Amino acid sequence: MAKNLTKRSEDYSKWYNELVINADLAENSGVRGCMVIKPYGFSIWEKMQAELDRMFKETGHQNAYFPLLIPKSYFSKEASHVDGFAKECAVVTHYRLKDDGKGGVMVDPDAKLEEELIVRPTSETIIWDTYRKWIQSYRDLPLLINQWANVVRWEMRTRLFLRTTEFLWQEGHTAHATKDEAVAETEQMVNIYAEFAENFMAMPVIKGLKTESERFAGALETYCIEALMQDGKALQAGTSHFLGQNFAKAFDVKFTAKDGKQDYVWATSWGVSTRLMGALIMTHSDDKGLVLPPNLAPDQVVIVPIYRNDEQFESVSEVAKEVMTELRAEGIRVKFDDRDTYKPGWKFNEYELKGVPVRLAIGPRDVENGTLELARRDTLTKDSVSREEVVSVVVDLMSEIQKNLYVKAANYREENTTEVNTYQEFKEVLEAKGGFILAHWDGTVETEEQIKKETKATIRCIPLDAKEEEGSCMVTGKPSNKKVLFAKAY
Amino acid sequence: MAKNLTKRSEDYSKWYNELVINADLAENSGVRGCMVIKPYGFSIWEKMQAELDRMFKETGHQNAYFPLLIPKSYFSKEASHVDGFAKECAVVTHYRLKDDGKGGVMVDPDAKLEEELIVRPTSETIIWDTYRKWIQSYRDLPLLINQWANVVRWEMRTRLFLRTTEFLWQEGHTAHATKDEAVAETEQMVNIYAEFAENFMAMPVIKGLKTESERFAGALETYCIEALMQDGKALQAGTSHFLGQNFAKAFDVKFTAKDGKQDYVWATSWGVSTRLMGALIMTHSDDKGLVLPPNLAPDQVVIVPIYRNDEQFESVSEVAKEVMTELRAEGIRVKFDDRDTYKPGWKFNEYELKGVPVRLAIGPRDVENGTLELARRDTLTKDSVSREEVVSVVVDLMSEIQKNLYVKAANYREENTTEVNTYQEFKEVLEAKGGFILAHWDGTVETEEQIKKETKATIRCIPLDAKEEEGSCMVTGKPSNKKVLFAKAY
Repeated sequence: MAKNLTKRSEDYSKWYNELVINADLAENSGVRGCMVIKPYGFSIWEKMQAELDRMFKETGHQNAYFPLLIPKSYFSKEASHVDGFAKECAVVTHYRLKDDGKGGVMVDPDAKLEEELIVRPTSETIIWDTYRKWIQSYRDLPLLINQWANVVRWEMRTRLFLRTTEFLWQEGHTAHATKDEAVAETEQMVNIYAEFAENFMAMPVIKGLKTESERFAGALETYCIEALMQDGKALQAGTSHFLGQNFAKAFDVKFTAKDGKQDYVWATSWGVSTRLMGALIMTHSDDKGLVLPPNLAPDQVVIVPIYRNDEQFESVSEVAKEVMTELRAEGIRVKFDDRDTYKPGWKFNEYELKGVPVRLAIGPRDVENGTLELARRDTLTKDSVSREEVVSVVVDLMSEIQKNLYVKAANYREENTTEVNTYQEFKEVLEAKGGFILAHWDGTVETEEQIKKETKATIRCIPLDAKEEEGSCMVTGKPSNKKVLFAKAY
Repeated sequence: MAKNLTKRSEDYSKWYNELVINADLAENSGVRGCMVIKPYGFSIWEKMQAELDRMFKETGHQNAYFPLLIPKSYFSKEASHVDGFAKECAVVTHYRLKDDGKGGVMVDPDAKLEEELIVRPTSETIIWDTYRKWIQSYRDLPLLINQWANVVRWEMRTRLFLRTTEFLWQEGHTAHATKDEAVAETEQMVNIYAEFAENFMAMPVIKGLKTESERFAGALETYCIEALMQDGKALQAGTSHFLGQNFAKAFDVKFTAKDGKQDYVWATSWGVSTRLMGALIMTHSDDKGLVLPPNLAPDQVVIVPIYRNDEQFESVSEVAKEVMTELRAEGIRVKFDDRDTYKPGWKFNEYELKGVPVRLAIGPRDVENGTLELARRDTLTKDSVSREEVVSVVVDLMSEIQKNLYVKAANYREENTTEVNTYQEFKEVLEAKGGFILAHWDGTVETEEQIKKETKATIRCIPLDAKEEEGSCMVTGKPSNKKVLFAKAY
């Protein structure tokens, strides 16, 4: 604990791994590619969950739960879905172990399943198999359901939070009577994700559409939010899919309209995952550790007492507890760390590593002077504040720090977004600077593939707010009417 | 929807299944033994989760998340655990599918795992394998962690909520420096479960200890709460295990005490599951459907408008919305069902089926008279209440209904708990009346087995408040110092 991290400038990837582990966010487990989310990391995820869940419910969604295990044959029902999804996944073939006679256990060969079960990589198939029974009439629509769940996708190269074999996520699955309603839902959800990213994670994102080759398997249109990390690489932070009638047709989900006509329903699905934790870390943190926006910090303020003897501890604690009570009355999450098993210096490092937005320290001299020492995690500045003003100062700081982190990240993104006109320029910028690059593209899969192959950059999205302009593809010279967003990506 | 249920007196089991399905709580899925928890059922589970989670956090516990998949060899490490747990479970043997050339998918034989992975039936093994890394010193103790998760146990005969192959639960896993602390934690958690059952589920429970043969695999002592269902059968609603140093020894988890000495840590684990939904249903519901205690009802009050034309709808809605606003200001969860796609009679049946504690109906004549019609779900009584008094009446009813349900269930349990002195009497009561039976037992596994074999009744627990008295075992005549609790059980 509290040891120095590798500097970001030295090795960003190493810095990330050390931060995740040393800040007690997560660690690798004894199970290949699967992480353990530690209590501190999980408490941040719980905050994210709570806000997203509230936003989903405020827009009329309900939670439900569908089986973890999905019969293999379900994945064959929607042709493009099976190609994209059902391959790298955990397959259950047996349902019993038995003693191996050597003090261990072995798989019982007599307990082989007739049909193998797949640990869900995503739940469209099992959910649409269920919706067939739930939807008969226009009265049953729209059906607006979300699930918080674990999913498994067999990944060969894993990184904590960013790419793990098992991860936690939410997946929304909705059914609508009309195409327009389904498209509106898809757009609503990508807007909710963007709002969450910006207002809670303090992370600016670009909303856009995925190109055909980057679309979700089975979707007609995939909306996404893309964020730029501190190392100049992009991270896809959430997706919302318009599925058309593909799954309704594959699973025969029809409804009778008011006028008595029958039609297949229109579908969407949308999700964000524990990957957001990785995005949060790589948007704000520094060489001293995690930096948390107050809106998601499990502890927004920590108070550390400084003392040499019991008497000093008593008088310092008295003030600390008063301040804690007053801050809590303002709705602020405060921790008073009065453990005598660690020294103040150790605690200072620990809370810097863990990204607590504001640290208050109070010693005997502060008690005499009627002051406290206030340290901001985002700016690493320290100030003396008076006992009278400390509560209002901290209350104001919560929104100021939240805003400051957003502005800092937005400035970084702006500085690292480059518009280019030629492929040569594109390669140079990508090499020298990285970041987001806006360039004209001819709209073909072939050109996209060529760029990816030659530069490792991909089209992150076609931004929703891209301005219409006449131009020509930087590679082929064919006409293009807007610039699209390129980057190397996580 | 809203069709009549089979009467409980005719076929309790059929009634239960119909209720679960018709009240939109859960249904069977296309996956053997796995249920779909529907939005209404899930919203009740969310209420349970929220209250339990709050109680866990108030007693110092934190949430974390551990992998779903556990290497097979982990289950062999604690000898008694493997016997009890690792047998009927889902085994992952492969990690990839491939095209079968016929438009479907098949398991890729080249993607066989070196070591099979088990879908967790419970997480002691993976958690204790992790705790070894987390615990070095007394400073790291106590470690108080809970996990909300899905688990899979291969069940041959399943019933919605009561016994399903996959279910949702929470599992607490704690580590302590001393035996006394661990025992105190075990007791604290069984007390929290009892408090939750009684104050939120309105379900009286008996706290007790399991006999050796009913103990959790790997535990030194298992505490439980046992409830009595309306059909005279018992249901184990929660368990809390004192694990001694068994898992610490199996996974080599030692700590250094303040005095420098090393020792293995002491452990507990405790859990409740979606089985509680079954307990809730079978404690209070009636032939008209679900009956929910207000403390867990997603909607505590529903308001149904009665009208023949738009003008009436307007005036009725105006009052309904005012009442809704006033009730919400009192913290009451209110739904105003203004759907024009269903008639009032249909809605009345629907909300009875779904167990909403209070129904308010308001029609044009009510508007004229300044009244509303109030129907209680627990007593099925209807009254006219004045507009002025309705809010305070409903507020009072919330606690009154909560209390009434508890008292009713407690009375039922008292009437169906019988003390017996002879085995003959025991058999007669079990046959004629069922319920809980208190009887002397000689404390041996053999006698317990004999009783189970001959009568199908099991020892539910040795009640913590059993009074000491001299007696003799009803079967063997050997001495016994307290009566234990028998019943046929779910």
